[in-house]
Amino acid sequence: MVKLTLLYGHPADAVSFESYYAGTHLPLAAKIPSVRRAEFSLVTGALDGSSSPYYRIAELYFDDDRQMQAAMGSADGRAAVADLSNFADGGVTTIVSNVN
Amino acid sequence: MVKLTLLYGHPADAVSFESYYAGTHLPLAAKIPSVRRAEFSLVTGALDGSSSPYYRIAELYFDDDRQMQAAMGSADGRAAVADLSNFADGGVTTIVSNVN
Repeated sequence: MVKLTLLYGHPADAVSFESYYAGTHLPLAAKIPSVRRAEFSLVTGALDGSSSPYYRIAELYFDDDRQMQAAMGSADGRAAVADLSNFADGGVTTIVSNVN
Repeated sequence: MVKLTLLYGHPADAVSFESYYAGTHLPLAAKIPSVRRAEFSLVTGALDGSSSPYYRIAELYFDDDRQMQAAMGSADGRAAVADLSNFADGGVTTIVSNVN
């Protein structure tokens, strides 16, 4: 499978972020086609207890790279990506990887 | 669940990294207790096709933070973490997160 990982940096206002994320962004992201599995998590820190540069992780799984590219290039995929700039003011690092 | 994410930076020598990772590190990591699920993936790039600062992702899932702390603090957990310095010359970023 192919996994799309989004690492969100810390937002300026976590309360506003969470409200927008749950109420607006996740419903948009739920429209992305061909997603086989999705996982969302809230970062607590690094393994050694120090703070992490990341605030949240989101992972979307697709059958393969072709499916992911088609899904993220679709109107719904593009809308979800475009929406990131509306709330993710701490930045978003994206990683595409092949799951063994 | 609690997820421990390891983001490996690019190694100086990917062939040597892969050999050590598969032959030595993963067998050590497999001894870490209380791991409910493990997922390993090889990064291909960022969503926009640009290169990623990360080379590999490994994710270990535990029932909760207490189990993760106990597991990573055990002799086998400490041995796996100590082994990182033997091959992960591109650095390792760790992230602990609560999966919703």
